[in-house]
Amino acid sequence: VTDGGQTAGRDLVQVLSAALQAGVRAVQLREKTLDTRDLCRLTERLLPSIRAAGARLLINDRADVALALHADGVHLTRRSLPPAEARRLLGPDRLIGVSCHSVADVADAAAGGADFVVFGPVYETPSKLRYGPPVGLDSLRRARALCPLPLLAIGGITADRVAAVMEAGADGVAAISAVLSAADPAAAAGALLSAVAAGRRDH
Amino acid sequence: VTDGGQTAGRDLVQVLSAALQAGVRAVQLREKTLDTRDLCRLTERLLPSIRAAGARLLINDRADVALALHADGVHLTRRSLPPAEARRLLGPDRLIGVSCHSVADVADAAAGGADFVVFGPVYETPSKLRYGPPVGLDSLRRARALCPLPLLAIGGITADRVAAVMEAGADGVAAISAVLSAADPAAAAGALLSAVAAGRRDH
Repeated sequence: VTDGGQTAGRDLVQVLSAALQAGVRAVQLREKTLDTRDLCRLTERLLPSIRAAGARLLINDRADVALALHADGVHLTRRSLPPAEARRLLGPDRLIGVSCHSVADVADAAAGGADFVVFGPVYETPSKLRYGPPVGLDSLRRARALCPLPLLAIGGITADRVAAVMEAGADGVAAISAVLSAADPAAAAGALLSAVAAGRRDH
Repeated sequence: VTDGGQTAGRDLVQVLSAALQAGVRAVQLREKTLDTRDLCRLTERLLPSIRAAGARLLINDRADVALALHADGVHLTRRSLPPAEARRLLGPDRLIGVSCHSVADVADAAAGGADFVVFGPVYETPSKLRYGPPVGLDSLRRARALCPLPLLAIGGITADRVAAVMEAGADGVAAISAVLSAADPAAAAGALLSAVAAGRRDH
């Protein structure tokens, strides 16, 4: 999940390209300070790295940008288009991810036609003021129990916490600063991915 | 053109409904401080008044919201999707308006498949810091000369200035505060519309 303000001054596309080469499967482009035209330009710059990696690109909130630039889908929050409306615009094949912060959110996302859920923040994060207090592992377990969709954990996920969120039922993890702010984004992404692979073997 | 911050505390939908009943033909919903969900809700609240008046509703910048809510089109700026991309998403029937601030902008808008142009600010406005210095009547005349599309003048247009912008070639006018901030928005819209009608008879 991107935030161009967290790359320690490095070019976002270069940082993401390194992470994609390390195996990251999907990028959610989430750049709220960009106007629409600049978001389109950034999407165009990023797409070759996405395609070269066989990964997916989801645009935060903007179904029109996703459609115009042939991205793979959108990521929605409670402040976005309702998932059912986004599905009508995007058609059956593009991906719709939904941010969920509570067990009730997860039920809504599943009913609204989302393809997957990003649940959190599980742990404290530097962005916690924006996303609210951590929901914790117990809440993740309860969300998992009623969520029929793939569920990714987000929020303070470091490689040494991946085992715990996988044990609680996450299918994978999402990260912002853990990758974007890392001195070596490829190594940071690789460590998360290895921990996820290990978690899948164990659960 | 809306700005919910300029209604002197009155409900935007009520102010617009009064203006629509006075004969306003189109509303551009331009509410940059709203998130997408709230923009959708506002659009839903406004649409009955639009339909009752036989008017059109264009959504600023958001082709996805226009499509999801069945609005009549979008309004674009240099910071939005390029007009050709918006046309591809919206299809041939929905309207695409483009804000132009120079003669060069007008040429681009026409080439990009826009349906009409909003040109200005012609005069000084309270919003001038946001839109740049006034372009003036001479620039309006030059834009008119090379613009094959309907062209509306915006920016400081009061009823007593309508004759001058129509004489310079505008097909009509657009307003923000002149209607939204008026003590009697219906009367303010009516005065502009009467002046436009008179200008059409004269030119």
